[in-house]
This record gives sequence, structure tokens and C-alpha cells, in this order.
Amino acid sequence: MDARTGLPVVGMVGAGQLARMTHQAAIALGQSLRILADSADDGAALVAADVVVGDYTSLADLRAFASGCDVVTWDHEHVPNEHIVALAADGVVVQPGAAALRYAQDKAAMRERLTELGIPCPRWAPIASGDELAAFGADVGWPLVLKAVRGGYDGRGVWVVDSVEDASDVLASGTPLLAEERVAIKRELAADVARSPFGQGAVWPVVETVQADGICVEVIAPAPNLSDAMAEQAQQLALRISSELGVTGVLAVELFETTDGRLLVNELAMRPHNSAHWTIEGARTSQFEQHLRAVLDYPLGSTALTAPVIVMVNVLGGPDDVEPKALDERVHHLMAHWPDVKIHLYGKGFRPGRKVGHVTALGNDLEDVRARARAAADYLSNGDRA
Amino acid sequence: MDARTGLPVVGMVGAGQLARMTHQAAIALGQSLRILADSADDGAALVAADVVVGDYTSLADLRAFASGCDVVTWDHEHVPNEHIVALAADGVVVQPGAAALRYAQDKAAMRERLTELGIPCPRWAPIASGDELAAFGADVGWPLVLKAVRGGYDGRGVWVVDSVEDASDVLASGTPLLAEERVAIKRELAADVARSPFGQGAVWPVVETVQADGICVEVIAPAPNLSDAMAEQAQQLALRISSELGVTGVLAVELFETTDGRLLVNELAMRPHNSAHWTIEGARTSQFEQHLRAVLDYPLGSTALTAPVIVMVNVLGGPDDVEPKALDERVHHLMAHWPDVKIHLYGKGFRPGRKVGHVTALGNDLEDVRARARAAADYLSNGDRA
Repeated sequence: MDARTGLPVVGMVGAGQLARMTHQAAIALGQSLRILADSADDGAALVAADVVVGDYTSLADLRAFASGCDVVTWDHEHVPNEHIVALAADGVVVQPGAAALRYAQDKAAMRERLTELGIPCPRWAPIASGDELAAFGADVGWPLVLKAVRGGYDGRGVWVVDSVEDASDVLASGTPLLAEERVAIKRELAADVARSPFGQGAVWPVVETVQADGICVEVIAPAPNLSDAMAEQAQQLALRISSELGVTGVLAVELFETTDGRLLVNELAMRPHNSAHWTIEGARTSQFEQHLRAVLDYPLGSTALTAPVIVMVNVLGGPDDVEPKALDERVHHLMAHWPDVKIHLYGKGFRPGRKVGHVTALGNDLEDVRARARAAADYLSNGDRA
Repeated sequence: MDARTGLPVVGMVGAGQLARMTHQAAIALGQSLRILADSADDGAALVAADVVVGDYTSLADLRAFASGCDVVTWDHEHVPNEHIVALAADGVVVQPGAAALRYAQDKAAMRERLTELGIPCPRWAPIASGDELAAFGADVGWPLVLKAVRGGYDGRGVWVVDSVEDASDVLASGTPLLAEERVAIKRELAADVARSPFGQGAVWPVVETVQADGICVEVIAPAPNLSDAMAEQAQQLALRISSELGVTGVLAVELFETTDGRLLVNELAMRPHNSAHWTIEGARTSQFEQHLRAVLDYPLGSTALTAPVIVMVNVLGGPDDVEPKALDERVHHLMAHWPDVKIHLYGKGFRPGRKVGHVTALGNDLEDVRARARAAADYLSNGDRA
């Protein structure tokens, strides 16, 4: 509890854009997010008052950071699970806890648990050798998907392979792997939900996520042309997973909608997630406020939409010749051309393909809203080169 | 320019809730507001990374603060005008500048200038003696309103007097004064506008402001039952004043709607203003983002509403027995009871009558939205005592 304000202190490990936007939400709630940053130049560290620079893989640093926090939560999945166990044993309130986070840190554990629960996933198998991969490929067909069990994100740690030979480098690397069938998909969806320790759940409308090279580039809320039955099914799936796995805070359930009309779970993330950035303007309660509410065991806020259609487009770093001057000029021109498009910049340097911000547009007509959001994001990435 | 981000550094003098909420808006634009605080415990200082503690009446402190800022702006009107002139002479970009700010700092100068421009105001006169007050009272009738020329806000520095005798203490105090007729009003309105140095203006829909004891307690957007003609007149008035006075950034024009159907200018504020806090959720561009855009000479954002009705109610400190524990409990209960009401707490201690936060509700039905916003704010102020 912050004695100056009478309000709780939430600590977030990690200082990327998720912490940065969570801090914005914390301010409205009378709080100031405490942030464990790798560097004082991290996006969230640039804008918050209560920043500790330290190493999230060091239990000593985590313990020092946690001291004085009413609850500790996560901007990413990379904190060693055993450190989270140790913090909890110290009496630190960690949300989500180690038992739940394991399923966001270890894809094999996640697949195993969801399979036990009867939750639909692509067919999968742990892979320890070329022989195991050959057997799995014979079963589900080629090409198939190889994934690192730990540490992948934004398309890293994922390989589409045509044969055992094609996978030889990955197999030889010693990385723990699992294989999944390559599902024929119509599109990707996400069902984002928040759950409090008390057990309250609140789910946002299901969204469509558009990927390019394994990176989410665009999110459309609500998912267009999704039947009520399938939307309901996706929401129930997210609520059930959050409850069965004991998740607290925001849970993003990334889904495949298959060409034959099934919903399969692709990935889980237990933190605010790119698929729900649209909620800042597009929902009565943003995912960042909701995450704070949930980890503090406050009652959750309304997930109602604020407009019929909301489109979020990521701003990825374009060619690496962007000078600081150019970014400010681009912001200027974007504002002139799209006075209603909302800009979110993360305080990160532009590097090709890096997520450096996003824009959100709202309205009534999907094609119009989508075109404006895309054009604005593209302008910020590429300026006049587009 | 912040070399780490390639984006401008805005410095705001003053660290109250206006700076706090401006910092929230700055984060989305990729910036981090630089703040000159009286104390490290000021509401904005608790949440921002770039805080300088100093004295806004000291030119040396202001100069040190301004160094490295691309533009300097104001959270309040209390910086000595001659210091602003001196900063500008140093080459600091100050927005709004000294010439415009004078009209927000000196009510006699404001009345004189607006009168010259033919802008409707209550009848008024500078008052240097009891005889002058007697003559003005004989002209406009009693009771009338005495105002301190400088430094008043939230009902301070304003006295309703029935006679010269009734005003004797104020007259004897030596405070420079002006007198205004006490206008028969139907209600108070505000027309909030932003203007950039380039000269672009953008005005939000006109709102009704409800006062109690001289403090704004509630704002309804758009003002109910306001004719299109009168709304247009109020907006044009605000745009014209901002332009004629050379205002940059947000200008709040507080207006009287008289019982005989006229609009008279009551007060001017040249900064984000309580009458536009509703814009955070209720308009496509909040006053805080718009103020940043305006002082940076960026193009201004859309002022369109996001819902048919928006009501903002201030949270005033209730009886002074509020313990920190009580505030957190109240937040908890508020969230449970009103899951759609948006909370804004300023990081300030509760003192009776002090503005410590506000809440905003949105919807379709005025009476419903208003009742929810009022009840939620009252609960935060008073808990179960209400």
C-alpha cells in the first residue's frame, strides 16, 4: 500500500509496451506502476516514476523488487518459474502464479493439460528425435509445424518443415521441441478474458487477428462474420481455460478457425496481449485496466464495445533509415491526415519488423475503418515510401 | 527532442491532476511529460519519470526546468507573467505565451480586452474604493459580485456582497478588485477549444457545468436542451476568443446562459480544464492529448463524441476521517457496483471539499447516466455515510 495515496502498489516485471500501457491505466486508478526494467531506456521505464533496473532472471533482484509491492505481475513469460515459486514461498502475492504461468511458459505442458481437459488443439507430439518426427509426420502429414517448447514469440521458435531432413538443424540444436499438425485454417481469432483470484471472469468480444510472418499485424473487433454460436464457444473456451488453469489477470487465447468449422487453441498468453490493444479506445474497460483490477482482486470492469467496429494495426519498424526527425514529422502528417486515428508509440527505436507502436480506428463501416487504420500505420512505418 | 525516442519533450509547470492526466496522454504519443513540481509527492510527480522539484515563482528554477524542453506549458495560471516574458526572451518556446496568459491571470485585463472586442460579458468595473463600489452598485443593483483581479479559483477570491458595508473587509484588504453585476442565470456552460500556433482551432461540443459553492461538481456533455443556434454561438465565441487573444493549447470559456437567453463570458482558463475531463472517454481526442498537440503545433484531433451522453462528476474529499484503507475499499465497492463507470484518482490526500478525482459515465439516457455518475462519485467521497 502506498502510504501517500492509500492505494495498492502493483509491481510489473518487464518494461516493454505492455508495462508502459499498464502504467497509463494505473494512473487513472490512483496508482503508479512499479516496474522492473532491464534498462532505464526501456519503453515503460521512460514514462514511470517507480522504476527499478534489474535482472528478471536473478532471484535476488526479483526479491528486492517485490519488497513493498502488494502484488507482482508480468509483462512477459520469461521469468524462471522456480523464481516465481520462491517469491510466493516468501509471501509475495504473484498474479498469475507459477502453476498457471507454467502453461504459458512451456508449450508441451500447455498442450498436455489442454488435451487432458478435452479442449480442442491441433494434433501434437513432443519430439526428441528425427525418428519421432518421422512417425508424427507419417501420422498427420507434411508439412508440419515444429515449435520450441520454451521462449518463442512473434514467430520466433516456430518452423514449418517439409521433412525430417528439413528439420535437421533444429533437431540438432538440442532445443526441446514439439510438433503440431499444420491445420487448414480459415483465419486466426483471439478470445481475451480476465480472471480475478476471487474467480470472477470477464471476456471481451472475440476478435480476428491477422498475422504476417508469424507476427500479429492487425486485429479486428469484433471478428467479422463470426456466428454467435462460434463466438460464444470461443468465449466459453477462454473462460474455462482461465478457470481450469487458475489464471489470474488477462489471458489471451489465440485460436485457429479451421476451414472445416472447428476452433482449435493455438497459443496462450497470461498478460495483456497484442490481440487486445484495441480495448484502450474500443472497450469500456481496457485490457490494461482490467489486468490491474484482476491481479488486485478488484471487481472487473465492463467489456462492452464503444463502437460497432474497431481496428488496431501494429506499427512495425520499416527500413532502418528512420531518423528521429523523420518520426516526429510522420506523427505530424498522420495527425493531419487521420485526425480521428489514435496513436500509441512505445518509446522504442525503429528496427525493421520491430513492434514500435500501434494505431486504432473506430467507426461503423469495417472496410472504411480498416483502410484508415492500415494507411495510418503504414505511414508511420514507412512515410512516403509506401 | 528526446534523443532516445526522436520525439519532442513537453515541459509542464505544475504537477497537479492536469499535469498527471497530460502525462497519461503524452505516453500514447511516445513522449514523457517533463514536470516542474512543488514537491515530489504532487499528484503528477508520483507517476512521471521526468520530474524536477522547484519553485515556479523563481525565474532561475523555471530557466533550469525549461532547458531541454521543446515547449513549456502550464498546469495553472500562477507563474509570474514577467517570468514567462523572460523565458521567451531566452528563446524558450512557451505555449500559451505571456501576452495570452495575461488574460487568464488578470481578470480586469480580460474584461477590458473582451469588452473592446465586443464579446458579451456581465457589466463590470474596476473597484479601488467604497465610493466606486457604491456607484457601480447604484448602476447595476445589489447584490453584486466582487472578484480578486488575480489568483482566485474554485470559488476563492469571489464574494457576493449586498452593500458597500458588506464588502468592507475585502475592500480594506488591499486586494485589487473588480465588480460584476450578478446576472440572472439559467445555468452555466463551457465551450472548450484548442488552438495551435499555426492557427488551427478545434472545439468540443458545448457542455453544461454544475457548480456548488463556486466549485464545478458536474459536467454534462453535450449540454442538454441547448439550441443548435446557441451551441454554435458558444463555439464561435470560444474560437474567436482563442484567436483574438492568441491563445495556444486548450482554452476553456466558462459561460453564463442568462434567463433572458444571452450568453455571457464568465471566466477564461488557458490550460486543460475541469469542464473537459469528460473528453478522456467521451471524445475521440481528450483535452489532454489535444493540449499536447496544440502546444507542439501538431494538427489537432477529432473532437467528436463517443457516446450520446457523457457525465463527469468530481470526487471531492468528504469528511476528513478518510483513512487510506477506506479509499481502497471504496474503489473496490465502486467497481463492483458500477462496472462501467470510469475512475480517475489524482494521487492527492482526501481533505474536505478538495478535488481528489473524478468519475465519468457514458450512455444514451441522460437521467440514467447522470444518476450513475453521481452515485459513484458520492460513494467514493463518502462511502456508506451518504
